Amino acid sequence: MKLKEKLGEESAADDRDVANLGSDGQRLYGHGLHPLDPLTPIELNQVKTLVKKSYQNVTFHYVGLDEPYKPKVLSWLSQNQHNNFLDPRRAFVMARVDSKSHEITVDLSRNLINSDKVYDGNGYPMFNNEEQTVAIDLTLKYASFIDSIAKRGLNLSQVFCDTFSIGWYGERNTKRVVRVMCYYSDGTINFYMRPIEGIMSTVDLDEMEIVDYRDRLMVPVPKADDTDYRESKQDPIYDNYIKGMTILQQDGPSFTLDGNHVSLGLAFVQCHYNHRRIVPKMQCFWMVITQHKMELLQKYPEFFCIFERYAGDVMWRHSEAALPGDPVEVRPDMTVVVRTLSTISNYDYIIDWEFKQSGSIKITIRGSTYTHNNQIEDEVYGTLVAQNSIGSRHDHFLNFYLDLDIDGDNNSLMKSHLQKVIVSDQSSPRKSFWKVVNEMAKTESDAKIRLGSGETEIIIVNPNKKTKIGNFIGYRLIPGSVVSPLLLEDDYEQIRGAFSNYNVWVTPYNKSEKWVGGAYVDQSHGDDTLAKWTLRNREIENKDIVLWYTLGFHHVPVQEDFPIMPTMSITFELRPANFFEHNPMLKVKSSKPRIGLIVLKNKLLSKD
Amino acid sequence: MKLKEKLGEESAADDRDVANLGSDGQRLYGHGLHPLDPLTPIELNQVKTLVKKSYQNVTFHYVGLDEPYKPKVLSWLSQNQHNNFLDPRRAFVMARVDSKSHEITVDLSRNLINSDKVYDGNGYPMFNNEEQTVAIDLTLKYASFIDSIAKRGLNLSQVFCDTFSIGWYGERNTKRVVRVMCYYSDGTINFYMRPIEGIMSTVDLDEMEIVDYRDRLMVPVPKADDTDYRESKQDPIYDNYIKGMTILQQDGPSFTLDGNHVSLGLAFVQCHYNHRRIVPKMQCFWMVITQHKMELLQKYPEFFCIFERYAGDVMWRHSEAALPGDPVEVRPDMTVVVRTLSTISNYDYIIDWEFKQSGSIKITIRGSTYTHNNQIEDEVYGTLVAQNSIGSRHDHFLNFYLDLDIDGDNNSLMKSHLQKVIVSDQSSPRKSFWKVVNEMAKTESDAKIRLGSGETEIIIVNPNKKTKIGNFIGYRLIPGSVVSPLLLEDDYEQIRGAFSNYNVWVTPYNKSEKWVGGAYVDQSHGDDTLAKWTLRNREIENKDIVLWYTLGFHHVPVQEDFPIMPTMSITFELRPANFFEHNPMLKVKSSKPRIGLIVLKNKLLSKD
Repeated sequence: MKLKEKLGEESAADDRDVANLGSDGQRLYGHGLHPLDPLTPIELNQVKTLVKKSYQNVTFHYVGLDEPYKPKVLSWLSQNQHNNFLDPRRAFVMARVDSKSHEITVDLSRNLINSDKVYDGNGYPMFNNEEQTVAIDLTLKYASFIDSIAKRGLNLSQVFCDTFSIGWYGERNTKRVVRVMCYYSDGTINFYMRPIEGIMSTVDLDEMEIVDYRDRLMVPVPKADDTDYRESKQDPIYDNYIKGMTILQQDGPSFTLDGNHVSLGLAFVQCHYNHRRIVPKMQCFWMVITQHKMELLQKYPEFFCIFERYAGDVMWRHSEAALPGDPVEVRPDMTVVVRTLSTISNYDYIIDWEFKQSGSIKITIRGSTYTHNNQIEDEVYGTLVAQNSIGSRHDHFLNFYLDLDIDGDNNSLMKSHLQKVIVSDQSSPRKSFWKVVNEMAKTESDAKIRLGSGETEIIIVNPNKKTKIGNFIGYRLIPGSVVSPLLLEDDYEQIRGAFSNYNVWVTPYNKSEKWVGGAYVDQSHGDDTLAKWTLRNREIENKDIVLWYTLGFHHVPVQEDFPIMPTMSITFELRPANFFEHNPMLKVKSSKPRIGLIVLKNKLLSKD
Repeated sequence: MKLKEKLGEESAADDRDVANLGSDGQRLYGHGLHPLDPLTPIELNQVKTLVKKSYQNVTFHYVGLDEPYKPKVLSWLSQNQHNNFLDPRRAFVMARVDSKSHEITVDLSRNLINSDKVYDGNGYPMFNNEEQTVAIDLTLKYASFIDSIAKRGLNLSQVFCDTFSIGWYGERNTKRVVRVMCYYSDGTINFYMRPIEGIMSTVDLDEMEIVDYRDRLMVPVPKADDTDYRESKQDPIYDNYIKGMTILQQDGPSFTLDGNHVSLGLAFVQCHYNHRRIVPKMQCFWMVITQHKMELLQKYPEFFCIFERYAGDVMWRHSEAALPGDPVEVRPDMTVVVRTLSTISNYDYIIDWEFKQSGSIKITIRGSTYTHNNQIEDEVYGTLVAQNSIGSRHDHFLNFYLDLDIDGDNNSLMKSHLQKVIVSDQSSPRKSFWKVVNEMAKTESDAKIRLGSGETEIIIVNPNKKTKIGNFIGYRLIPGSVVSPLLLEDDYEQIRGAFSNYNVWVTPYNKSEKWVGGAYVDQSHGDDTLAKWTLRNREIENKDIVLWYTLGFHHVPVQEDFPIMPTMSITFELRPANFFEHNPMLKVKSSKPRIGLIVLKNKLLSKD
């Protein structure tokens, strides 16, 4: 899959970067800078220049912040954040040199390479943008491929190709290759709906040459009819009876942005709870999660946004008919949303982190994916969604790395089991009731949990702190759509994606355990994954822990998904559970949404 | 529980009622009137007057539309709806006369009683408002009760009481009684947080006298501190940093209201799909569900609203990096929400029916409940949420009656099983894959389904109609939060609430099977409930069927729920599944939300 990676592209320094460097070239904190900030364009160029000094023929596959020592970050957070941050700022690089994978650490402050190791394990680093482009170009210019296209009566200039990892299915020897498959864009922007079946080119990415080419069968390319989704291409097009709507913030937004630091301005954090740093720490884990994406996206500001949201929802309400005047009290649910948008070939994901005033964080994942189509007429593989097009069945599993620090660094996973109790004596007319039995997970194997029955609540608590009346301070994971994999556990794909075997896992924080499927995910044998790390069965009670949460859905395509589907959404929530002494929004003035049907004579507003 | 029922209250005729009656007093259809419209205030008075002619001492417990014969309604819907509707308009009444439950049918057109039967089964009809008020007043004036209050040093004028059904726990003889329990409102509007423990009065509702009074123990009433949730009572109160927001619809709303008929103006229904009546039928089932509530609420217009919603969500999007100019196409998710709000004692429910342009209907239930507190210090029953206050653990199970008619009256339940297939030969490097096996439910027992694993998709199809390329036309139920009861199946409460034994049930449509827990729900023995009806195991394939869907959550209270909790929300979706030939919104102009940060000099907008 060709990610929108622009690594290595030259770019001018931006003003902020220059402004925040001292005369000695050191990063000055206290200007909206944070130790977990992603690398800046200047820093990316610095890395590139340094590594290229050592190796002339190098390709970059990952360049990101080498995360500083976490206790130092926590200590910096808990102090006045305008202090300088003393750990050196470093970059971590995954590169290929002479058919070998290198892991290089660069000291950005001292402008030198700290360490350089060759990785000799299984799997390869992610594809980068340039090599995917070259692999596609090689195929498009390959004589046999040109023959194949001509034989089908297609116009080569309308052929677009994409790259696909070949996976790993038990082969003893592997090479760093990629598969190229092609589509026909004649008459549509939506070329994924027009696969050119039967042709497959395999490109060796180290040698950069085609090592296998096949033209096995010739079947009709699905028609372009009805596949182009652009509004400008619809003919006829019908009127939409949903009228326009304007959302105004007369007084401006409630959040402020200073560098990569978002101040949500939530009253309860800033004023009422003695600076207990739940949101700053939540921001930390959020930045960790999206850091990689943010690096990829820094040239694409339209793929990231922050906005306030009021959708007519209610945070809490009550009316009281028993009292004179039927008093009604309502609080609107106004939230701040941090959104990332990413397109990976024919898949689009929108991930919202919605920060509620009640302290809840609601995460919504919307997939506006459409399915890769093929023409296998066997209904075993999918649903016929249009003439000659079968929407292939597939799964979406998403894993969230949640480095929670609930009111302190050392936390525990508390499993609250809701248990049926049978009343055996005659003490009550009831025959049964339920109680809650709390169990602290001691080791990683205690924390492998398949959800689904709703009978276990997942709560991360700080076992060292209690509320005034004695409950453990905590946050609860309220799960969303619960799915389990439908493959054998020892099937190769399931070995690589073993994080989906459980919905919940907990590990002790470990800087090197960052990606659930491992760093060398292409042709991985599954040996550097969450499932393998947790076999050590480390202790997780009263430690700095990470919660890994898997959710997703099975996708059986329907015709409505053709040629592009309405978003499917799944949601989960991190909700305070005895974190506050009582409802934190009670003693805060209610925010005032202003909803009105106002017909304006002033035309100012009708400009889009 | 004292419902906000205003039955029997005198009311002036409103203009529309008069306008829509012909000179012979017959209802004239074609003026926004629908055969399933709830009774009007005039009709309610007509019923009251007629029944009071037969019985001087009568109490009304339910008065609603006696639903007309469904095939006639369907035929009226499928024709020009401006035709008259020929079935007589009737009301159904549940009343108590001389300690007997009567079921009375009134012919509103001919102004006479059609039928009058005495019900001699188990259970009693719902409490009405007047008798609950009288039962409370009797208690408040009862000499022993006044003594109990004085003995505790409380001020009688600050005591408020509520009524509670006594349930049924196997007693052979029952009487129509209600339990009264009281609270102290001194210093707070939120009197449910100040239960006066140990006192219990039992009132016979037929004889209207106290039949049992107990004052068993004296414990301190929990303090009023921090319990009042009104903004005006907070001291100190803190500033909220969430600023105001205005939502404007310069061109007015997109829906129109004609009587009880909402035209959503969704382009795809009106223009593109040959008047296939999915939305009108969806409205039907919706009206059936909320009909009872609508009748109760007609004096309370603030408990019901319809609005358009745009919350920054995306209906579908795609960006294409492979093509020149990186084209991005996005459609906003603008929806129409039909909302009901109901308060039942200390529980508040907000139910949204959100109609999406894609044909999906998303139902969200928000509970802003707070828990009835008691002082039992035993942690078995709940969480200590404040001094002397334990939030009791409890369950919320909601059942939705979904009388779906997917593109026709006769439908089937299709269970799509996602099944693992093991590859036993060497034909593929894969060891397993999954396939879909569709199974049509033949009888009611085939349709009792516990969800949770995500391995069965629930689709209501029209087995008589296929799309052009041969898929059954259908709508899929995408379930929300899946919970199972934690009580024994033969426990009395579970017998009465047996609908929670399964998440999905399907029955053939039967006018008399309207309420999942039966009509006589007070002290019910569970013999007129969904669980009992389905024991007949009727055929449901290719019939006019009803889908009953149960969802909910277990509530383990936390301190944030005190003294009133932030809403907890659960959601499910009815989503087209091969109902349309392709994504229905593709050939429709995109609606244009206008989002902007506009600082206005004109002060017009800042008026609330």
